[in-house]
Amino acid sequence: MDGTIKTDVLIVGAGPVGLFSVFELGLLDLECHLVDILDRPGGQCAELYPEKPIYDIPGWPSISAQGLVDKLLEQIEPFKPAFSFNRMVATLERLEDGTFRVTTDENDVFEAKVVVIAAGGGSFQPKRPPIPGIEAFEGNSVFYSVRRMEDFRGHDLLIVGGGDSALDWTLNLQPVAKSVTLVHRRPEFRAAPDSVNKMYALQEMKKLRFEVGQVSGLTGADGQLASALVKGPDGEIEVPCTRLLPFFGLTMKLGPIAEWGLNLHENLIPVDTEKFETSVPGIFAIGDINTYPGKLKLILSGFHEAALMAQAAKRRVSPGERIVFQYTTSSTSLQKKLGVRE
Amino acid sequence: MDGTIKTDVLIVGAGPVGLFSVFELGLLDLECHLVDILDRPGGQCAELYPEKPIYDIPGWPSISAQGLVDKLLEQIEPFKPAFSFNRMVATLERLEDGTFRVTTDENDVFEAKVVVIAAGGGSFQPKRPPIPGIEAFEGNSVFYSVRRMEDFRGHDLLIVGGGDSALDWTLNLQPVAKSVTLVHRRPEFRAAPDSVNKMYALQEMKKLRFEVGQVSGLTGADGQLASALVKGPDGEIEVPCTRLLPFFGLTMKLGPIAEWGLNLHENLIPVDTEKFETSVPGIFAIGDINTYPGKLKLILSGFHEAALMAQAAKRRVSPGERIVFQYTTSSTSLQKKLGVRE
Repeated sequence: MDGTIKTDVLIVGAGPVGLFSVFELGLLDLECHLVDILDRPGGQCAELYPEKPIYDIPGWPSISAQGLVDKLLEQIEPFKPAFSFNRMVATLERLEDGTFRVTTDENDVFEAKVVVIAAGGGSFQPKRPPIPGIEAFEGNSVFYSVRRMEDFRGHDLLIVGGGDSALDWTLNLQPVAKSVTLVHRRPEFRAAPDSVNKMYALQEMKKLRFEVGQVSGLTGADGQLASALVKGPDGEIEVPCTRLLPFFGLTMKLGPIAEWGLNLHENLIPVDTEKFETSVPGIFAIGDINTYPGKLKLILSGFHEAALMAQAAKRRVSPGERIVFQYTTSSTSLQKKLGVRE
Repeated sequence: MDGTIKTDVLIVGAGPVGLFSVFELGLLDLECHLVDILDRPGGQCAELYPEKPIYDIPGWPSISAQGLVDKLLEQIEPFKPAFSFNRMVATLERLEDGTFRVTTDENDVFEAKVVVIAAGGGSFQPKRPPIPGIEAFEGNSVFYSVRRMEDFRGHDLLIVGGGDSALDWTLNLQPVAKSVTLVHRRPEFRAAPDSVNKMYALQEMKKLRFEVGQVSGLTGADGQLASALVKGPDGEIEVPCTRLLPFFGLTMKLGPIAEWGLNLHENLIPVDTEKFETSVPGIFAIGDINTYPGKLKLILSGFHEAALMAQAAKRRVSPGERIVFQYTTSSTSLQKKLGVRE
């Protein structure tokens, strides 16, 4: 922890809309810090469908989701935004002078004059598998992601799932763990064929164990796992298990933002269409997470919302300052900010 | 005149916002016909600053105005929009079945279920120069653009101005006209240097006459010009003139749309922010020509407005039909419309 981080604008979510906000806020001389639960910028575009083409970004007949993220990063580069990845915002408190103090689950503390929620569908959260009693072991023996590989050294590791995360961690943790068992419902996988081949090769060499089936029960005490029951086509077997990594995909949850005292409507945040401000002055919501009459969950709409939000954010950060609306095509001062004119 | 042209949506203005409307309407299976006063698509982008870079189109760190227009034309190509250039919409009438009948100054007749006004700052209209009595000759001897070069054959032509239009027409009409006189306030020109050089070369060869000065008066009767008085540094001279082409730049006027019975506010059209519909149901206004709380005259905002407008237009054209909101990234049916999937 480096002490409190002060910024003009704290942006929750580094998806395309959060990223473009940096541009619109930057044109108005506002500094931004972005927080995202993922480990890199791009939000759903980068996490869920990086290779898929998008056809409805105006002026781009076709662009891959990751390609759009890369272009946005290039576009906001002149404004040098700060990023904090791998953390979720937690609490929000309003200080006496109107500043917002926001903490994260990694104990960062931010102070910002404006908070912009551009959190898309919410935080990506791992789905909990339907294994009876799993909650009792979460955080001690059951993990939904690997933050440090050392946490798995010397353990009897059980990995459940058939996608890339399951296969990648099976291969990466195999040299570290005492034993690795991979469990999947079928012998076919959604993961990259190369990873699947490698896993089967390790099984041939008896360096790991692959079982077709589902985890039907867990044994252990005080949060410490001892073994897991795996129900397969030939009945139930018990496998040693002191660490369990289930990869059942991600779901989107609003998360702690739900506790910030904002008016909510079906897990969305109602905003006005002039400033895209929430029920709390100084907190704005843009992109898929907001709602208003006519709302479409288009990246394009989030971009427009960012532009109008930025005007209101500027008025809040610099009250009384006259804002001259300028065009990047004609304004020397904006072109200097963008680094395209000396 | 080919008889009445029927279309789902008549779009007034083929600037970037009018063009992108074709995309959003096309995704919803609505056919579009665009009318523009200019001779090509692109609006202000193509007419006023085609070479200038724009920096605030999301996902385009820099794109020339003409480049953006070209990309938009490529993006809407699958929807095969129809264009009518070089004409200005004139009258609007609402038929009994709710269809709109729109005419133009070239006597086209359109019937459309929806009218979208995407006319930017309005129609480009030539500025009238401060020459006493010029109105009496307009349309007979005084013209603000060249529609047919033959109209100038055998005439004593006077061209006034120092930009590209003035110089280009001086050079192009010189072989056609009986005589050509170019008048400009100064011996320096804003026009392309190459055109200026050519003009001076023709003057050397006595194939045209260039005078520094201003037109101070006109002679003639019944709309037919006979001569013009040109006031220069050495006094006033009379030059033969049966055709006058003044190029004093363009101005933007709302034009006949002002007579369509829409509520107006300072030459802008107020709309709601759910459908971007005007005070007349079925007539929408998007882009720089509309106004609502928070409005910014950004191309980006016009794009967003087009997307929301399209949903409302679809409900009007196909009442009762269920509209499923789909993404181009995931919808097979949208991808088929775009021609990227068989």
